[in-house]
Amino acid sequence: MLKLSRLLPSISGSSPRLLEPLSFTKHDPRDSAAFSTATNNKYAAKGYTSNRIFAPYSVYKGKAAFSLSPCLPTFTKLDSGAVVVDRRGSMMMIFMHSIGERKYDWENKQRFALSATEVGSLISMGPQDSCEFFHDPSMLSSNAGQVRKSLSIKPHASSNGYFVSLTVVNNLLNTKDYLSVPVTTAEFAVMKTACSFALPHIMGWDRMTHQSGGTVGLQSKVEPPALDLEWDK
Amino acid sequence: MLKLSRLLPSISGSSPRLLEPLSFTKHDPRDSAAFSTATNNKYAAKGYTSNRIFAPYSVYKGKAAFSLSPCLPTFTKLDSGAVVVDRRGSMMMIFMHSIGERKYDWENKQRFALSATEVGSLISMGPQDSCEFFHDPSMLSSNAGQVRKSLSIKPHASSNGYFVSLTVVNNLLNTKDYLSVPVTTAEFAVMKTACSFALPHIMGWDRMTHQSGGTVGLQSKVEPPALDLEWDK
Amino acid sequence: MLKLSRLLPSISGSSPRLLEPLSFTKHDPRDSAAFSTATNNKYAAKGYTSNRIFAPYSVYKGKAAFSLSPCLPTFTKLDSGAVVVDRRGSMMMIFMHSIGERKYDWENKQRFALSATEVGSLISMGPQDSCEFFHDPSMLSSNAGQVRKSLSIKPHASSNGYFVSLTVVNNLLNTKDYLSVPVTTAEFAVMKTACSFALPHIMGWDRMTHQSGGTVGLQSKVEPPALDLEWDK
Amino acid sequence: MLKLSRLLPSISGSSPRLLEPLSFTKHDPRDSAAFSTATNNKYAAKGYTSNRIFAPYSVYKGKAAFSLSPCLPTFTKLDSGAVVVDRRGSMMMIFMHSIGERKYDWENKQRFALSATEVGSLISMGPQDSCEFFHDPSMLSSNAGQVRKSLSIKPHASSNGYFVSLTVVNNLLNTKDYLSVPVTTAEFAVMKTACSFALPHIMGWDRMTHQSGGTVGLQSKVEPPALDLEWDK
Repeated sequence: MLKLSRLLPSISGSSPRLLEPLSFTKHDPRDSAAFSTATNNKYAAKGYTSNRIFAPYSVYKGKAAFSLSPCLPTFTKLDSGAVVVDRRGSMMMIFMHSIGERKYDWENKQRFALSATEVGSLISMGPQDSCEFFHDPSMLSSNAGQVRKSLSIKPHASSNGYFVSLTVVNNLLNTKDYLSVPVTTAEFAVMKTACSFALPHIMGWDRMTHQSGGTVGLQSKVEPPALDLEWDK
Repeated sequence: MLKLSRLLPSISGSSPRLLEPLSFTKHDPRDSAAFSTATNNKYAAKGYTSNRIFAPYSVYKGKAAFSLSPCLPTFTKLDSGAVVVDRRGSMMMIFMHSIGERKYDWENKQRFALSATEVGSLISMGPQDSCEFFHDPSMLSSNAGQVRKSLSIKPHASSNGYFVSLTVVNNLLNTKDYLSVPVTTAEFAVMKTACSFALPHIMGWDRMTHQSGGTVGLQSKVEPPALDLEWDK
Repeated sequence: MLKLSRLLPSISGSSPRLLEPLSFTKHDPRDSAAFSTATNNKYAAKGYTSNRIFAPYSVYKGKAAFSLSPCLPTFTKLDSGAVVVDRRGSMMMIFMHSIGERKYDWENKQRFALSATEVGSLISMGPQDSCEFFHDPSMLSSNAGQVRKSLSIKPHASSNGYFVSLTVVNNLLNTKDYLSVPVTTAEFAVMKTACSFALPHIMGWDRMTHQSGGTVGLQSKVEPPALDLEWDK
Repeated sequence: MLKLSRLLPSISGSSPRLLEPLSFTKHDPRDSAAFSTATNNKYAAKGYTSNRIFAPYSVYKGKAAFSLSPCLPTFTKLDSGAVVVDRRGSMMMIFMHSIGERKYDWENKQRFALSATEVGSLISMGPQDSCEFFHDPSMLSSNAGQVRKSLSIKPHASSNGYFVSLTVVNNLLNTKDYLSVPVTTAEFAVMKTACSFALPHIMGWDRMTHQSGGTVGLQSKVEPPALDLEWDK
């Protein structure tokens, strides 16, 4: 039987409301990893001042935490007028170590961007399945192979949830970092449902539907039909 | 075999249309628990006069009833221009006792707000699973522990649906309230599908997609990419 | 193994395009049951001339056919400014008898409107499950019990799809009508997926999200929070 | 256990970002099959210059590749004001042979347009299921039967994914073409999730909801109710 208790103050991400005013100190555990804050000049300097919306799903546990957010693809318009994907979307996971009671190491976070196909792995996992993904951030550059990241999702021995763990080996800095966050069945259900919702969006397919603005209305009648016809060739 | 009968007038929430004009008397069983009405000055006084939309899913049974509605998160804009979640969203359940034929005790309703993770528990329940959630509305205040609410969802012995039950123990008023509503497999399927639909919305993720207005169009090209890049560090 | 053949001209609803110009004769099998046509004065007279959109999912078989369409709820605005559901939404099924090769009896169609909870039954059916719904269109009127409709969904003996059957007994006219349409596993998967998509819409929940217009933007900040708070009481 | 490696440069579609600037040469494997490009006069000549958005899901493998994109239905407005489906939507699959390392034969691609019901087959497939679809692009014309296309989806012997294979027999040109692409469980999960998302859109049902523009707002109150009432007859 699932039991979720909120009788005791906890640092779980499951609270239905924020119980205290937001304070944007660096290690506030309720602070989103993606928040742009006045005191965080590093981000202001990078230009995170546009009208972006931040609403990550965060799982805070004793030794580490991670947040999960969709990153939409960007599009570019060709001279022909066609709009194509420029940079692909992903589900961004950001991990932080715990550095005290309800404090997380905001300065040294690690990122891992799940591709559409990796999201497909996650959402098709059964309760006994595990998966592991390997990324090389320097792939195809002169530093290829110097930094290796792997994300693994493994079921608890009790089959009551999963361990979500990130390993980052950096041969350039001679460091190795390991962060592991246990997630409950309920938290994983949120991740799967939210990722299933987000998947068409990170693929850019929400742009290809009547809802997405461009082709709403009867104007869709004038879409050139030839491209779409199997019988065309 | 499932059997749903509408031959007899019933107070079930499954009727496809309202068969009588809406009358906003206090105990009308078809009246949404969340309706703002002219005769309900308590709500008018609280300012429920904005253009809010009310469409709860209600399950009316012999001894009690509950309704289910999504409550969206609220957002706030930082000086930097970034928009962050202010108050988290939830799925609000409102329970009422029956006080006569097709009459429910609108005056003494009890609320229970499911967090995103609790919604994750609900939508991942199999036919034999049960779950229980504990809330303390006064958590972190001087009255912590004085009011305890627990919501349990337990399968029927026949495994044909669930009992959804709320217990509220109030040590300040020295009261104990218990409301239990049997739900059919079909009603629970509606709850799961509707909660799965609503989950990304109560998380605020519908704001983070191309559909949600802010970033529709080619302007998304100018989103600062640095935040989203795993390779950035 | 599933096999769907389109080598032979068929009257199945699965063709990816309309192979002939639309002709709105009364019994054209490819003609939607819900089409408003110039020659169909019955509909013009009823006012079906507004900018409504018709895109039913139709299953045409040898003896009968049915189409499936979502019917959205209607809303009404109270003096307080709150918007409430006026008439509930449903999934409308329209059945017609076959009256010749690729001809269906458009004049004598039968309707059956699935409520949200009945849709919940349909989308939660496993391959061996069946369900049956009973409606009385005259419920609560003086003619109560005179017309009885029942819709049943039963698995094929081969467990390769279902029979979807409607029985209408009209004691006022002393008639009994029976229409049965075999649906394949694939067609039923479309019905389940489309009904799962439509369910939040017929419940009116798409109006309660950030996507639905009214509350998009930062104005959602000014939503009165009191209603939504479990801790309020 | 699933293992997805990105340590080696690969031509898989699973990369979370485009690692090189887009170059629209004809056989660039990262180039979408549907891209409208300046150098591709064939498409420009056909008018693919409108503001269309292209974001196919592509699976590139050693011997062949395919991409998957939704094609929306087109609508037409009748004199009565009603809007009806003109050409049905589909999920377009485009296959190409490999003609070298990371090069695909863009000139000789083969198309296969999945109908809504065929999409229903795909999304309801279990890990051991297979399906096969037969299309005749010349159906109902004088060339009926001269070109036969069949698409099959068959599980790997290891039950770790599927083979997606297209056969095109053209008796007019006396040619036979065969393309087969192995897809992993994760890639197939993306296809199923993306097809489930797209299905209501290719059916045109996104137009029938409050989200789709036309009927947003209180005006939906004035929708003629008669059409929707089961009780109307």
